[in-house]
Amino acid sequence: MSRKVAIVMGSDSDLPHLEPAVETLKRLEVPCEVRVLSAHRTPEEAGEFARTAAERGFGVIIAAAGGAAHLAGAMAAHSLLPIIGVPISATPLNGMDALLSTVQMPPGIPVATVAIGKMGATNAALLAVQILAGADEALAARFAADRASMKAKVAEKDAAVRARYPAG
Amino acid sequence: MSRKVAIVMGSDSDLPHLEPAVETLKRLEVPCEVRVLSAHRTPEEAGEFARTAAERGFGVIIAAAGGAAHLAGAMAAHSLLPIIGVPISATPLNGMDALLSTVQMPPGIPVATVAIGKMGATNAALLAVQILAGADEALAARFAADRASMKAKVAEKDAAVRARYPAG
Amino acid sequence: MSRKVAIVMGSDSDLPHLEPAVETLKRLEVPCEVRVLSAHRTPEEAGEFARTAAERGFGVIIAAAGGAAHLAGAMAAHSLLPIIGVPISATPLNGMDALLSTVQMPPGIPVATVAIGKMGATNAALLAVQILAGADEALAARFAADRASMKAKVAEKDAAVRARYPAG
Amino acid sequence: MSRKVAIVMGSDSDLPHLEPAVETLKRLEVPCEVRVLSAHRTPEEAGEFARTAAERGFGVIIAAAGGAAHLAGAMAAHSLLPIIGVPISATPLNGMDALLSTVQMPPGIPVATVAIGKMGATNAALLAVQILAGADEALAARFAADRASMKAKVAEKDAAVRARYPAG
Amino acid sequence: MSRKVAIVMGSDSDLPHLEPAVETLKRLEVPCEVRVLSAHRTPEEAGEFARTAAERGFGVIIAAAGGAAHLAGAMAAHSLLPIIGVPISATPLNGMDALLSTVQMPPGIPVATVAIGKMGATNAALLAVQILAGADEALAARFAADRASMKAKVAEKDAAVRARYPAG
Amino acid sequence: MSRKVAIVMGSDSDLPHLEPAVETLKRLEVPCEVRVLSAHRTPEEAGEFARTAAERGFGVIIAAAGGAAHLAGAMAAHSLLPIIGVPISATPLNGMDALLSTVQMPPGIPVATVAIGKMGATNAALLAVQILAGADEALAARFAADRASMKAKVAEKDAAVRARYPAG
Amino acid sequence: MSRKVAIVMGSDSDLPHLEPAVETLKRLEVPCEVRVLSAHRTPEEAGEFARTAAERGFGVIIAAAGGAAHLAGAMAAHSLLPIIGVPISATPLNGMDALLSTVQMPPGIPVATVAIGKMGATNAALLAVQILAGADEALAARFAADRASMKAKVAEKDAAVRARYPAG
Amino acid sequence: MSRKVAIVMGSDSDLPHLEPAVETLKRLEVPCEVRVLSAHRTPEEAGEFARTAAERGFGVIIAAAGGAAHLAGAMAAHSLLPIIGVPISATPLNGMDALLSTVQMPPGIPVATVAIGKMGATNAALLAVQILAGADEALAARFAADRASMKAKVAEKDAAVRARYPAG
Repeated sequence: MSRKVAIVMGSDSDLPHLEPAVETLKRLEVPCEVRVLSAHRTPEEAGEFARTAAERGFGVIIAAAGGAAHLAGAMAAHSLLPIIGVPISATPLNGMDALLSTVQMPPGIPVATVAIGKMGATNAALLAVQILAGADEALAARFAADRASMKAKVAEKDAAVRARYPAG
Repeated sequence: MSRKVAIVMGSDSDLPHLEPAVETLKRLEVPCEVRVLSAHRTPEEAGEFARTAAERGFGVIIAAAGGAAHLAGAMAAHSLLPIIGVPISATPLNGMDALLSTVQMPPGIPVATVAIGKMGATNAALLAVQILAGADEALAARFAADRASMKAKVAEKDAAVRARYPAG
Repeated sequence: MSRKVAIVMGSDSDLPHLEPAVETLKRLEVPCEVRVLSAHRTPEEAGEFARTAAERGFGVIIAAAGGAAHLAGAMAAHSLLPIIGVPISATPLNGMDALLSTVQMPPGIPVATVAIGKMGATNAALLAVQILAGADEALAARFAADRASMKAKVAEKDAAVRARYPAG
Repeated sequence: MSRKVAIVMGSDSDLPHLEPAVETLKRLEVPCEVRVLSAHRTPEEAGEFARTAAERGFGVIIAAAGGAAHLAGAMAAHSLLPIIGVPISATPLNGMDALLSTVQMPPGIPVATVAIGKMGATNAALLAVQILAGADEALAARFAADRASMKAKVAEKDAAVRARYPAG
Repeated sequence: MSRKVAIVMGSDSDLPHLEPAVETLKRLEVPCEVRVLSAHRTPEEAGEFARTAAERGFGVIIAAAGGAAHLAGAMAAHSLLPIIGVPISATPLNGMDALLSTVQMPPGIPVATVAIGKMGATNAALLAVQILAGADEALAARFAADRASMKAKVAEKDAAVRARYPAG
Repeated sequence: MSRKVAIVMGSDSDLPHLEPAVETLKRLEVPCEVRVLSAHRTPEEAGEFARTAAERGFGVIIAAAGGAAHLAGAMAAHSLLPIIGVPISATPLNGMDALLSTVQMPPGIPVATVAIGKMGATNAALLAVQILAGADEALAARFAADRASMKAKVAEKDAAVRARYPAG
Repeated sequence: MSRKVAIVMGSDSDLPHLEPAVETLKRLEVPCEVRVLSAHRTPEEAGEFARTAAERGFGVIIAAAGGAAHLAGAMAAHSLLPIIGVPISATPLNGMDALLSTVQMPPGIPVATVAIGKMGATNAALLAVQILAGADEALAARFAADRASMKAKVAEKDAAVRARYPAG
Repeated sequence: MSRKVAIVMGSDSDLPHLEPAVETLKRLEVPCEVRVLSAHRTPEEAGEFARTAAERGFGVIIAAAGGAAHLAGAMAAHSLLPIIGVPISATPLNGMDALLSTVQMPPGIPVATVAIGKMGATNAALLAVQILAGADEALAARFAADRASMKAKVAEKDAAVRARYPAG
């Protein structure tokens, strides 16, 4: 059976940015758990979650935060699992602060960083799927089908645009 | 048997930045292959490499490039494997161009981005190990030991610094 | 007969940003074709389009994308035609990501980059006209008239502002 | 006969950055003229050069400058030819000032901007070649051969790297 | 009699940003003229304006533009008068492009740059006043009174805030 | 008795950004005084305030400003008290100007800088509390309770999110 | 007796940047302890250090780190003491990553951030002194003398420069 | 007789950056005085200097500083004279901090900002000359000759470059 994915965020105000991750995992039938855990406000709980995640059946942790976004780094510090970081645009600096706080990790403790915001949330879920699919052939098949369907949608949009702008 | 890791780079001038990735994989006994493939100058070869990587036994692709760093994205476009992107500081913009070109991928095609340069190269290799370790218990054990050894080294450095600056 | 201009974009959500390019080409009577092709989601279609563009009568390709904007670079990798890149502001980073992903191309594969967004879309069309006009005298004449008309409009606005703020 | 390419720069201290452009044009047998013209210090000469460039046989102008890099924009303001801008890193801001001053042109007056520095200088020359090749089949053939040769060099480097790191 | 101040802008869409400059000059009884002149679209008119400004009674030129903001630099290139540059936020880059295009002038041709947008427009007018006041004692007296009045307004606001938040 | 906290701002338009500081100090029963003092428009008053703050019973000064935010630095130049700087996003540059103007102080005159805007205002008040609590045990106890209550609120939100997304 | 100051850093390679902090505390006779503790590599040790710092006699913690600089935030998460963060320039991004990772803390957990690098290290020590001086009159007196001496040095340099450039 | 120019800097380490300003004023025979005055370390002396500058015969103040560069703003706060700010690159942020701290002044207190570093120092002196020349015809004549000589030098360099690269 496939391992689960954890989606943790530093504040419940980050939730709307993460909906696409939840939906993507649902669509690909990957069980997930959503949590609010703060690297700064509830560091013990966050550390405890990360330390016990593997034994509780998680295979990947997706961590999202804004500003001085340390949550993904904190997960990575306390777990051997692959950690995916989603920088959130939650301050006047448009997520550049969260991006640099998430991606510029010191040697030894990687965070797999994706794009800022919803775009990144979707991709965090897909990256989790790609990771889990390495040991789950059924999931690999669902993922392959999902990408094929995405390609088909781009082709449909191309056709619609071509119809709207007939070659002159 | 563990799947292999590919390390691809856009130019052989990127090689010194990637040495830490090769060394890290060697230390953890993960077989790897190093290639020069350019998303822009040899796009067919790059695409072909990515499309056939899974069937040739690769489980993860690490792609490094500088400037308008498209190599990781090109790998991701042509493969279902997890792709790790290492932005290289190869222009006057200090790698900010490579970072944004690598991490800001559109929804559907994730690249797991790590830090700019050598720091990121080490972490790319460790992230690849974390991903492969999900289906390889022996590798997982080697990785756990590696992290423990890293912790021990920090403790040694702490002791050395404390000796140098006796608490006043 | 004048060669055609292709306007390709990574997503149909980029379309509003590109309307000024379509209008400008229409005004200058340059035939164009509008397509949705993604460097990441439909890389084979994008590559095929670029590889066959010259033989299908295109003289210039305008490619627009946001975020890690690789579309123009992908066109340039697969074609010998001049490629014009329009960075789109489609993420919280205000188009800085798209600008750097488009302009910082490695030696060998140029992309002629214009300004971010609609402003750049207009200029992409005009640059395509300037390129095609090198082998099309009638187009060169229309372009010269177009610029003269633009100058006249600035003069009109100057007159209107002078009337509104009589020299004190 | 092919039209000529002008390479103009704001200061002779920019010359080393532009050598790759001169060499590239020489290799592809495109006649060129190199000039020092300042948008700010010799604006009349710069304007005069641009206004008369077409009639003197130029088909493209490459303009390079650092800081508040206005030279390409000044060329574009005074000529109907395609203008290619090369931002130079000549201040503590690493060329970001020159890049934005060159690329963010207002609607109506495009500058085809390439990467910062030498990397961009090479590409400026190649872009000029692509533009001129539209009306010069012999040049188009030389350019096609040049790109093929570039591809071959990447393949050689790939082979060298593969030999150095035998797949493990 | 005091010399006049010219307020020139690259586009009439910049006008709302410049209203505070017009009002400030009016309040301090400095005659001014407002013009739309584009460094890129009407370069001859812009150059002519700058070359003849001194003889037509102008003592300072305020030039405002957005994006690759070359207007102030163009004025400075064609005139010996002090030129004040106001960067306008007119693109997705929030005026950073206009600021760098205005302030990073090469040695020999200064532009006195003020803050981005309306804040800068007010200050451009005050700086023009300070410059003209060097040879106009009545203006110097009006300017001294104006600053005193500004100080008094800050003191009033301080009193209002203190009343609203009685020291606790 | 606990010393007081001063909250000074450069303009009354900064007031909404500072409300969270006032509320936080109230909640923790720390007396405070709110003032409008400008480093640039009322420098004598600002200097006088800082020079006499310690003798009037203040233990910490919180200073907030936008743009070229010099108020905190001016307080620090004229007082030996710890000064906390809150950068305000008050220009098109999103507070990056205020952040750098506040934090990059020369050796000798520190400003304790917190995050941009409201987020920083809350933290400025808490930092002032932490500083004063060093010599005020009752305040230290209230602060400890306040943080515990904050942790409890994160736990409540975690529970709410878990209920909304039952582990799948 | 004065409480102690802890100086913690994420890596012993940060040590040269922190020497000025050690020297400044020594000069002002404030006892300090220097430690290497990593938020990411030794998170338990780092957390333990912070949680027990107050009871072991520390009054302030200075934490320095580069890249995704989480150390100061981790200290702040685990302690009620005032935490001072020193961003280190340790990556190609010149310390901008460390600055944003340190200063943009979420509401509830402040970090008193100072300038990047050595300049900030000196100021971190002085800020610690200012904080401790609130409850230590002898230290307050030493600090007042230290600042007076710094002022005198600036005056000496002023005299030297005036002598070198006699008013013309 | 022409009024004098003051060149003030925050630290004597800024002196090498300002040499071009001193030389330029000497060449144009404008008397100047060079001072080390710190907005942060000697604020009273700095304020006093600015408040009395006009009565002591100064017509313009050039102020240079790095980091959180407040010196020009402090001069502007205490004087009615035109103040020219030169941002110095003195921190890892390459002068971007000094530029924003100098240029983004609040409405009411302008600073005429020039480019970062030596380039800006030369231009600060020339801008001071332009300002003083408004009431000093002899200076205006020397300035006109100086610019003409600068133009001639660019023409010489153009000739040298043309000779080196004969049109091909």
